[in-house]
Amino acid sequence: MSTRYDIAIVGSGPAGLSAALNAKIRGKNFIIFGSDDLSNKLIKAKQIDNYLGFPNVSGIELKNSFVNHLNKMDINITNEKINNIYAMGDYYALMANDQVYEASTIILASGVNFGKPFKGEEEFLGKGVGYCATCDAALYKNKIVAVIAQNKKDESEANFLSTVASKVYYIPMYKEEISVNKDIEVVKDIPLKITGVNKADQLVLKNTNLDIDGVFILRDSISPAHLVPGLSVKNNHVEVDNNMKTNLDGCFAAGDIVGQPHQYIKAAGEGNIAALSACSYLDSKDK
Amino acid sequence: MSTRYDIAIVGSGPAGLSAALNAKIRGKNFIIFGSDDLSNKLIKAKQIDNYLGFPNVSGIELKNSFVNHLNKMDINITNEKINNIYAMGDYYALMANDQVYEASTIILASGVNFGKPFKGEEEFLGKGVGYCATCDAALYKNKIVAVIAQNKKDESEANFLSTVASKVYYIPMYKEEISVNKDIEVVKDIPLKITGVNKADQLVLKNTNLDIDGVFILRDSISPAHLVPGLSVKNNHVEVDNNMKTNLDGCFAAGDIVGQPHQYIKAAGEGNIAALSACSYLDSKDK
Ligand SMILES: Cc1cc2nc3c(=O)[nH]c(=O)nc-3n(C[C@H](O)[C@H](O)[C@H](O)COP(=O)(O)OP(=O)(O)OC[C@H]3O[C@@H](n4cnc5c(N)ncnc54)[C@H](O)[C@@H]3O)c2cc1C
Ligand SMILES: Cc1cc2nc3c(=O)[nH]c(=O)nc-3n(C[C@H](O)[C@H](O)[C@H](O)COP(=O)(O)OP(=O)(O)OC[C@H]3O[C@@H](n4cnc5c(N)ncnc54)[C@H](O)[C@@H]3O)c2cc1C
Repeated sequence: MSTRYDIAIVGSGPAGLSAALNAKIRGKNFIIFGSDDLSNKLIKAKQIDNYLGFPNVSGIELKNSFVNHLNKMDINITNEKINNIYAMGDYYALMANDQVYEASTIILASGVNFGKPFKGEEEFLGKGVGYCATCDAALYKNKIVAVIAQNKKDESEANFLSTVASKVYYIPMYKEEISVNKDIEVVKDIPLKITGVNKADQLVLKNTNLDIDGVFILRDSISPAHLVPGLSVKNNHVEVDNNMKTNLDGCFAAGDIVGQPHQYIKAAGEGNIAALSACSYLDSKDK
Repeated sequence: MSTRYDIAIVGSGPAGLSAALNAKIRGKNFIIFGSDDLSNKLIKAKQIDNYLGFPNVSGIELKNSFVNHLNKMDINITNEKINNIYAMGDYYALMANDQVYEASTIILASGVNFGKPFKGEEEFLGKGVGYCATCDAALYKNKIVAVIAQNKKDESEANFLSTVASKVYYIPMYKEEISVNKDIEVVKDIPLKITGVNKADQLVLKNTNLDIDGVFILRDSISPAHLVPGLSVKNNHVEVDNNMKTNLDGCFAAGDIVGQPHQYIKAAGEGNIAALSACSYLDSKDK
């Protein structure tokens, strides 16, 4: 007979890890799925200034502090990708590649799920390719940067970049009128691929090529609804209340998956809330 | 002419500090009010296990890491208590003891009050009951006043009052040694209620009654509804949306003040969100 966990946490970024600490402290029988690297978005960050307590660290350094915390608390990550999760009434069934796990509650902390990446995007992630212009702007002081933007609200990120970079190309992927700072060059074209040798140095579009030092790809996430059928999703983010509860009983979510801003400590804070909400839910069912 | 700050942050716990980091990174002209000890709730914690990245630390150790982060980013805390904040249309006026500060946006991160108000406190608020001795001292010239103090640092308010009032009773609610001016009478007793007819005229303690003209109740934080008139508050917590926006334009809130669970990293995560929301708000107004 398979174990029925109290809590299954999907994702080992800051949201999932913070949830795991609190599940452990509360003495719950839990499992956390993810990877030993914790999160790509952690290890690829060059410089992080806004995780309170860790001034000016690299993503690797922050990751190492997290690993140390897990080790000290005897928390192990299960290296499995969860492909689907089904609500079975009083528990959830989590489908991994060759195994099914069961848990009374789940915490979705799988980050934002991007659509098909551009050619070269994954290869150069952290080497000239980034997803958060305001986070990494400092790296592009007096450099040339392109911003591929899916939403009008991304204009503010480009504007901020233009105060730092020597040149900003803005490639809007949306229909609304563009209003960016006048020193930004708007390029209405279709991005095809990112090329370079050790780092990104060219953005190839349908009609032109841009020489760049970096390119930011600002996308909305893809619906996580395919992961958990029946989950309520809005603007590609899981809908949660202040307690990180989704529309499904016993299903909580935290981190990038629930919405902007996409940030480490915001994700960790929400993981904390989600775990405590899952514990309250379990405790109330036990009565 | 006084400076008009972009952002004024009220509170130097994890919520306020995290907001400050992000305001700094975004290049905003901001000010953060609080104390050099950062937060009593930080320095008083014996063991913290659930702040991701810091396994098994004392509150003092975590506080020192935060101070180091502030120093590295050249962020200074303004040691002032804000007594009232007024929405002035396109800016906020923040009233400190002897100065008024102005800011286009505010972030409330002042934590929560422990404990219920004393009996009679709300009834006589403004009628002999006050929260800021130095602000209202002039009203008690040659009168008899009691000060109920939660923290050693409140001693200076009592000392100041004693230069104006004819008699000051000081009721300390903390354990540290008391050192107030010698003409102040220290009363080690437990306050129960405030009584009077049209205004407060007696403070009833467990073992004695004091005839008074006024009583000041000095707590770590002022209830949010008194701090900012017009703010929407529910169950003594400020109501916010997912972006940490309150019902007042340009007013954001984060940390314990917005609700349960009361936790460090949840507060820090919300401070991050609140700061980025304030930045977006400022940027949209600039257009
Ligand atoms: C280059 C770069 C720099 C950044 N710099 C900053 C910065 O300076 N400051 C800042 O605050 N933020 C920064 N960010 C943003 C930050 O990385 C994210 O907001 C944060 O990592 C989100 O945490 P999360 O836990 O929600 O998700 P993630 O960190 O994305 O973690 C999700 C985890 O879930 C796992 N997962 C996903 N699906 C499944 C599945 N089906 N089964 C099992 N596991 C799964 C993933 O492998 C991953 O481990 C940066 C991001 C990048 C890419
Ligand atoms: C003994 C103890 C142990 C705890 N242990 C844990 C734990 O292990 N894990 C955990 O996650 N949480 C713990 N907590 C809870 C945690 O301390 C709080 O959730 C957290 O401090 C909230 O942060 P905050 O920034 O919202 O507010 P606070 O930390 O309360 O900070 C508020 C700040 O605002 C200042 N301030 C208030 N009003 C004003 C004003 N009008 N003008 C200027 N400044 C003002 C205050 O002086 C203070 O500096 C513990 C709390 C206590 C008391």
